[in-house]
Amino acid sequence: MSALLRGIVAYPITPFTPQGRIDEELLGSIVEDMVTAGVHAIAPLGSTGVLPYLSDEEREQVAELVIKRVARRVPTLVGVSSLTTARTMYHARFAERLGASAVMIIPMSYWKLSDAEIVAHYDAVAKAISIPIAVYNNPATGGLDLSPAVIAQLLKIPNVTMVKESTGDVNRMHRLVQLCGDDVAFYNGSNPLALAAFVAGARGWCTAAPHIIPHLNIELYDAIQRGDLTTARRSFYRQLPLLQFIVAHGLPRAITAALTMCGKTVGPLRAPLQALAPPHVDELRGILTALNVLPPLG
Amino acid sequence: MSALLRGIVAYPITPFTPQGRIDEELLGSIVEDMVTAGVHAIAPLGSTGVLPYLSDEEREQVAELVIKRVARRVPTLVGVSSLTTARTMYHARFAERLGASAVMIIPMSYWKLSDAEIVAHYDAVAKAISIPIAVYNNPATGGLDLSPAVIAQLLKIPNVTMVKESTGDVNRMHRLVQLCGDDVAFYNGSNPLALAAFVAGARGWCTAAPHIIPHLNIELYDAIQRGDLTTARRSFYRQLPLLQFIVAHGLPRAITAALTMCGKTVGPLRAPLQALAPPHVDELRGILTALNVLPPLG
Amino acid sequence: MSALLRGIVAYPITPFTPQGRIDEELLGSIVEDMVTAGVHAIAPLGSTGVLPYLSDEEREQVAELVIKRVARRVPTLVGVSSLTTARTMYHARFAERLGASAVMIIPMSYWKLSDAEIVAHYDAVAKAISIPIAVYNNPATGGLDLSPAVIAQLLKIPNVTMVKESTGDVNRMHRLVQLCGDDVAFYNGSNPLALAAFVAGARGWCTAAPHIIPHLNIELYDAIQRGDLTTARRSFYRQLPLLQFIVAHGLPRAITAALTMCGKTVGPLRAPLQALAPPHVDELRGILTALNVLPPLG
Amino acid sequence: MSALLRGIVAYPITPFTPQGRIDEELLGSIVEDMVTAGVHAIAPLGSTGVLPYLSDEEREQVAELVIKRVARRVPTLVGVSSLTTARTMYHARFAERLGASAVMIIPMSYWKLSDAEIVAHYDAVAKAISIPIAVYNNPATGGLDLSPAVIAQLLKIPNVTMVKESTGDVNRMHRLVQLCGDDVAFYNGSNPLALAAFVAGARGWCTAAPHIIPHLNIELYDAIQRGDLTTARRSFYRQLPLLQFIVAHGLPRAITAALTMCGKTVGPLRAPLQALAPPHVDELRGILTALNVLPPLG
Repeated sequence: MSALLRGIVAYPITPFTPQGRIDEELLGSIVEDMVTAGVHAIAPLGSTGVLPYLSDEEREQVAELVIKRVARRVPTLVGVSSLTTARTMYHARFAERLGASAVMIIPMSYWKLSDAEIVAHYDAVAKAISIPIAVYNNPATGGLDLSPAVIAQLLKIPNVTMVKESTGDVNRMHRLVQLCGDDVAFYNGSNPLALAAFVAGARGWCTAAPHIIPHLNIELYDAIQRGDLTTARRSFYRQLPLLQFIVAHGLPRAITAALTMCGKTVGPLRAPLQALAPPHVDELRGILTALNVLPPLG
Repeated sequence: MSALLRGIVAYPITPFTPQGRIDEELLGSIVEDMVTAGVHAIAPLGSTGVLPYLSDEEREQVAELVIKRVARRVPTLVGVSSLTTARTMYHARFAERLGASAVMIIPMSYWKLSDAEIVAHYDAVAKAISIPIAVYNNPATGGLDLSPAVIAQLLKIPNVTMVKESTGDVNRMHRLVQLCGDDVAFYNGSNPLALAAFVAGARGWCTAAPHIIPHLNIELYDAIQRGDLTTARRSFYRQLPLLQFIVAHGLPRAITAALTMCGKTVGPLRAPLQALAPPHVDELRGILTALNVLPPLG
Repeated sequence: MSALLRGIVAYPITPFTPQGRIDEELLGSIVEDMVTAGVHAIAPLGSTGVLPYLSDEEREQVAELVIKRVARRVPTLVGVSSLTTARTMYHARFAERLGASAVMIIPMSYWKLSDAEIVAHYDAVAKAISIPIAVYNNPATGGLDLSPAVIAQLLKIPNVTMVKESTGDVNRMHRLVQLCGDDVAFYNGSNPLALAAFVAGARGWCTAAPHIIPHLNIELYDAIQRGDLTTARRSFYRQLPLLQFIVAHGLPRAITAALTMCGKTVGPLRAPLQALAPPHVDELRGILTALNVLPPLG
Repeated sequence: MSALLRGIVAYPITPFTPQGRIDEELLGSIVEDMVTAGVHAIAPLGSTGVLPYLSDEEREQVAELVIKRVARRVPTLVGVSSLTTARTMYHARFAERLGASAVMIIPMSYWKLSDAEIVAHYDAVAKAISIPIAVYNNPATGGLDLSPAVIAQLLKIPNVTMVKESTGDVNRMHRLVQLCGDDVAFYNGSNPLALAAFVAGARGWCTAAPHIIPHLNIELYDAIQRGDLTTARRSFYRQLPLLQFIVAHGLPRAITAALTMCGKTVGPLRAPLQALAPPHVDELRGILTALNVLPPLG
């Protein structure tokens, strides 16, 4: 019931206009394309959506726009993380009022948090809302690594029902299954781990790749669902170069460049983030050409 | 001229009232005590001052209060970091208008920044103000590690004139001297490295310890200045247990607890940060007793 | 042709008598049990076989005994690593003369080796023998981490045809497939990665677990072979606690304790290695009981 | 009494003839030069002396030659490490019979050792000899990191009286002083940490640099002894590029190349170790020229 997400959970970027404002039209079009392509959930205001770089007003603007556009065709998972507990509660309540299906929270850190501080943080937010919460573990961005034991403790909070694991280590997922049981609702957030994670029992794959290759992402999930390991492996290795590239160069930089190549012009990233450097743009073009996303060069 | 700081650069906490607002009276008293004790500079809104956990209004409130209270008796180094370049520029300009002697900037990260992005970030802020900038490298909090080569590049920007190194590795300081010359203005930000850093040529020591032991901090600096290695070493090992403790448990938590023990009651930390756990409070009391900061028990 | 190994590659320990000599009878019995149980290859003188702790004479004694006992019923993969190139060549030639099917070489390090030194090391040994060589990458024991790029370079040496990857990171295996092609003969050497590695395309699983649970190991391999993901996953999670335990506590210590519990008394390990500490023995007994390897406690 | 070493502890390489045998004449000459230059101790069969790459006979040959040549003009510290406890005891006894002043032992690892195994290892060797033992901690070569707490425990064994710390982290030395008292006999084994370690209280500096710049090494030590921080710092930064180079490229490779440049032709290293690559040779030549070890280029 409460772990309502499965399959391909697509993370839209937050596109800006040349003037540095949220590009509402493009964001709506990106979300529409993802839903139409068949992804199973939409997750605005994630790392891909450059959540921490947005003002409070922009966060609310994005949440509202995406939730309205999706219009419950698929569930929405809205990022509401903030450095302080108070602001996280604020954003979580706002998302709930807007009609978000669930919220996702990464414990952002400046000072490293103790386990007790982490648990109290989630507990306070959980008490403030009624919709489910997904714990998001991504030490590479948030600066804090939640051990499987701490995640297991968080999953005992009534409406903390899901965990997105982005360490890229499948052993973490094994530990979650061992600590929380076979039916623990864990999701993979490390793109190159997609195959291993599904095989280990992941319910879904949190990914920005559906901006570019939604059908391949879904193909991999479907093959796993029907136990077709041969197709799953072939599909995985086919999309792997793109998955590796977008992780290596940062999702917002890589997706922005890829969309622009595909004819959807995205405005500049918010500084200090800059556009993908030219040699990497060339590498990305090669990858997209090999995937038939772009036509072969003249 | 431009590297105006030397000696003990004291970092005040940002104390809160029981209602969670800035405790202006206590902050003023802390700053006054530090200046009176003879520290060589005051640096509000550092990591110790929980900069990232404050609202924009609170940041401005703290900067204004501290600058006024110091009243140019010693230089002020004001933290102005923000995740985006635009907000960092905003806060830097604000600090300059208030009369800050210099500003300190840590490149906060969520998405890891490329070297080019880091340089552009500092360059944009440097162009927006006329006062000197201190680069702050602290991967443990900011999540981004500036190599000596990148720091050397930043120090070529006209008003970027100082660097605070908090990795805790004295070899980084050696590299800075090799890359930038003997007169590079580097400062140590890792408390337990105070002795090694001064010997390696650090101009100053950025520390929260003057909340509790300003005279010992100054004693160490003075001994180094007159080449008295025996005194310097004895002084260092005497204060080392406290230095290690405040780093191990997080400066805001540890300093808040120590001040409270010393009779200066500080309100609660801002969540998710919590007060020092009881067993650590006992350990801290033992350290302060051994330093004669607290009277012997019973 | 040349990558002749597949399936469960079983690594026997080197058991000692109470007097500290090789226990030939027990070693023969262990090997016999493994072959009878249906493992697909036998690999003496691996890490499990405490190769580096043996004298040259003992190494030869073990190699000869195991090769004779296996008697070509399955292939044998004999460890011949040594810190110097000259001694590695010596042992590789010896193994070839004894009739080993292939040899395995980990580049043992004291001084870290450059890529050029690693390649020259393998090249010299490869020229000295005609049988295939398996590259063994295990930084946790050997102290040297072979990147996928270096491994790809080594696989271009004519009789270097296989690689055992023991970093425990499935992404390394993805890179090998990308660099060397779908038919690269890689084997997994990290027990808890068994499921992920097979799904990623591993030809085999190099493991000491067949001392205790050969049928479960084979069951997992067979399920993958016929594309039965449900059975594979269930079998994997069932054996995972034992796999994690033997890795966490060191294969020789853990397997020795487990065999002794099962009634096959093994003599003391060679110092400085010591027997598994008592609390861990209890934990192991619990794991073996849950696996029905040991009967439930009275 | 028992911690008899102080000052510059010089580590000779083990030179080979073109035929790959120990070059006794050159080894004797290197040792003679070091003693004549005024170093305070000679330590054959260290990492610099490629101990692990030698046969037992070669180890004995080197120990005997060096002890005889030094002829008690300064103390000798002989490396006797081996992977097994039995072989370490054998070599320790051999060194004692030859007249070594003390022996040095690094706990070499293949399987990681538990603390209990480490203590038992040193205890067994300590009981087998009467001369002092120096614990050698160097995780980068030996693969095992001894925490300050474990070292403190080892120093309670009667004739374990010294510790060579090569992690390169001065905080480890602080911890040793805190755990064992001011008079703990610790030595620095990380060349670029020479200045910081002496200031922290190190009794000596274990280094291969006296092959090339013995007078600078001694100058640094003497300056510290008389409390002349300015000279110490200047001397340190002068020799630092060479210290960094020899560590970065491996002591045997770097020292062999430097000696050859200085006219003392050393035969090939033992494979898999290879001579310093040509671009690094050029870099080294530049460093030696800047130090006036080599004349300026025509």
